Amino acid sequence: MRAAIMRDWELRVDDLPDPTPGPGQVLTKVLACGICGSDLHMVKHGAEVRRLTDRMAADTPPDPTAPIPFQPDRDTVMGHEFCCEVLDVGEGVANLRAGDVVVSMPAAFDADGVHAIGYSNLYNGGYAEQMVLNELLAIKVPGGLPAELAALTEPYAVGVHAVAKSRIAKGDSAIVLGCGPVGLACIADLRRLGIGPIVAADFSPARRALAEKMGADVVVDPRQTPAIEAWRGAANGKPVVIFEAVGVPGMLEQAMAMAPKDARILVVGVCMQADEIHPFLGIGRELSIQFVLAYDPLEFAGALTAIADGSVDLSPWITGRVDVDGVPQAFTDLADPERHAKILVTPRG
Amino acid sequence: MRAAIMRDWELRVDDLPDPTPGPGQVLTKVLACGICGSDLHMVKHGAEVRRLTDRMAADTPPDPTAPIPFQPDRDTVMGHEFCCEVLDVGEGVANLRAGDVVVSMPAAFDADGVHAIGYSNLYNGGYAEQMVLNELLAIKVPGGLPAELAALTEPYAVGVHAVAKSRIAKGDSAIVLGCGPVGLACIADLRRLGIGPIVAADFSPARRALAEKMGADVVVDPRQTPAIEAWRGAANGKPVVIFEAVGVPGMLEQAMAMAPKDARILVVGVCMQADEIHPFLGIGRELSIQFVLAYDPLEFAGALTAIADGSVDLSPWITGRVDVDGVPQAFTDLADPERHAKILVTPRG
Repeated sequence: MRAAIMRDWELRVDDLPDPTPGPGQVLTKVLACGICGSDLHMVKHGAEVRRLTDRMAADTPPDPTAPIPFQPDRDTVMGHEFCCEVLDVGEGVANLRAGDVVVSMPAAFDADGVHAIGYSNLYNGGYAEQMVLNELLAIKVPGGLPAELAALTEPYAVGVHAVAKSRIAKGDSAIVLGCGPVGLACIADLRRLGIGPIVAADFSPARRALAEKMGADVVVDPRQTPAIEAWRGAANGKPVVIFEAVGVPGMLEQAMAMAPKDARILVVGVCMQADEIHPFLGIGRELSIQFVLAYDPLEFAGALTAIADGSVDLSPWITGRVDVDGVPQAFTDLADPERHAKILVTPRG
Repeated sequence: MRAAIMRDWELRVDDLPDPTPGPGQVLTKVLACGICGSDLHMVKHGAEVRRLTDRMAADTPPDPTAPIPFQPDRDTVMGHEFCCEVLDVGEGVANLRAGDVVVSMPAAFDADGVHAIGYSNLYNGGYAEQMVLNELLAIKVPGGLPAELAALTEPYAVGVHAVAKSRIAKGDSAIVLGCGPVGLACIADLRRLGIGPIVAADFSPARRALAEKMGADVVVDPRQTPAIEAWRGAANGKPVVIFEAVGVPGMLEQAMAMAPKDARILVVGVCMQADEIHPFLGIGRELSIQFVLAYDPLEFAGALTAIADGSVDLSPWITGRVDVDGVPQAFTDLADPERHAKILVTPRG
C-alpha cells in the first residue's frame, strides 16, 4: 500500500506491505484521515519532543499502560483522525464485519502492550491506504454520516475534553486564542453548551470566518483589537476561561498578561519548545493554568454523537482533500491559514 | 520615631515624624513585626516588580479598590506582619482604646483610597516604632496570646489561603518544596486539616527540623532524596498537591517535571523574575498550576484564631529579634537559612 512515512524527522511517500490484523483486530481501508497540526509539529520539533518525553519517563515509574514509543530512525506512518471501512476481520472478532464504517481512538493493543496509532513503528496511522484497528475500540459510524465528517471526531473530541476540563459553566464567558482546528473545536463545543459570549482571536481572516461559523459571538484580529478588549465590551464582567489554542512560545505569557483576576487559562495548544513566563503575572491575579491533552473514551464517543446528530456542524473545517501521495505537499500547504483549516487524506480516484 | 526606610531600592535607618491617625484610625506602637522574605525580594528585585505591576495595570481597566502604588524614589517603610498596641484613637473610633492589642490585614483606607501598609509612601509598616491602622480592619488579639505569636498571623494566613485555594481534601497528600516561612505555613495548615502524608523538601537542616515541628511526615534534602521519590514511598498513590514555596526561577519547571498525572501545583513562592518552563511537561500529564496571593479577611481572622486556640504552634518559627536599627543587618542575616527562619522587629530595650 502507499503510505506517507516519517523517518529521521522527514516525510516521504513509499510503498509498504499491507498490514495484517491480529486476534481481536480488523483490517480496514482508510476512507478519510485529517491532517493534524501536531503531525506538522512532530516533523519539525520531534527531536525536542522526544527529549522531553524521555525526561518525563525518566522521572516516572514505568507505566505498563503507556504506549510503546516509536523509534525515530524507523518508519512511522502518522495520521490519527481517521474514519475507516472494515475489509477483513481477525480471529475472534464478533461484532464487526466487512463493509462496516468505524472510527476509533488512535490506540491499538496486542500481546506486546499499547500502541499509539500514528506514533508507532508497528501500527500505521491514516496517512496510508490501510490500517489495523482493535474491535474493542472501534465505534460504528451512525448510518448516513459521511466518512469525512466522522473523521473529524478525533479533533473535535480534543475540544470537548478541553471544555470539560475547564469546568466552564453557563454564566461564564470564553476567550479562544487561535482559530486553528483545536480552537475551532473549543468554540464549537462552547457554543453547543450554550456558553457566551465567546470571543475568538486569529490573525487570519479565513480562520476568523470559520470561528464565526462555529459560533463565536465576537471575532477579532488581535493586531487591531486585543481579545481582552473585545471581551470587556461583550462579557459584562462575567467569569472567563481563556483557551490558549495557538501553542507557540510567548502565547502563555500573553494569555496571563490579559487575564482578569481569578481567570482560568486552558492550555490546549501544544507548545513543544521552551517558553518564558513571568510567574508574577499569575500571582498578582491568582490565575490558574490547566494543561490538557487528548480526551477519554466517553468524550470521544460523545464527540461522534454530537457530529452525527447535528449538534455541531463541522463541515466548514474541510478545506481540501489529497490522496496519500499528496500528504507531503499538504503538510506544506497547511502552513497558510488563509488557504486551509483541515485537509483530509482520502483514497485516490 | 525610628524607622527602617527603603528609598531607591536601598534600605537605611533614620528618624521620621510620628504618624497621625485620621478619622476612623488609631495610632499604635509596634509590639512585634516579622521580617518577610518578600521585603528582601522587594529591595533586590523591586525595579523589575514595578515594571511588571505597571504592565499589569496598563492591561487592565482602572480599579478603584487597588492600592495606590508607592513611588520608589520616596520613603517607604515596609513591614506587614505586625502586632500593635493602641496608643491613641482618631475621630469617630468607637471600639478601640489605648492599651488594646491588635493585628490587622496590612491595608489602610482614607478619603484618598486604599493603601498597602508596608508598600506605601503614606502608611508606614512595622519596621518603625509606630503605625496608623484603621479600626475597621483591626482585630483584637485574644487575651493571653503573646504579641510575638499574634504577629505571625499574617504569614500563617498566606499558608491558610494557599491550602484553601488548592482545594486539597482529606485523602489527598502534599509535597511542600521549600521550608521558609511560606512553606512552613502551608505545612502547619495542612497538618491542622489532617492532610497526610506531607512530604517537605529543603536544602537546610535547620529548615527541615522546623518542617518536622510543623507536622511534615517526611522531610528530605532534595540533593539526597528527590521529594517525589519520598512521596512515592509514603503516599501509596494518593492524589497529590505540590506547593512550590521557593519562588526562584527554575522551581516551577522542577515541580512540573516531578508531578504525577493530574497533579495540581500551587505556586505560593513569589518568583519575581522571568522563568522558563516546558509546557509540554504540563500537557503530557494534564497538570494544573494555581498561582496564589495573600488571603481574604476571613482567612486572616481564622489564622489568628488557630494560633490563639493552639490549633497550630508557630513559636519555633521565631529565631531572632532586633530593634528598628537592627533591620538592615537582619535583612542580611536572613540570607542564611541555618541561622534564621523569622526575625521579629520588637521595641528597643
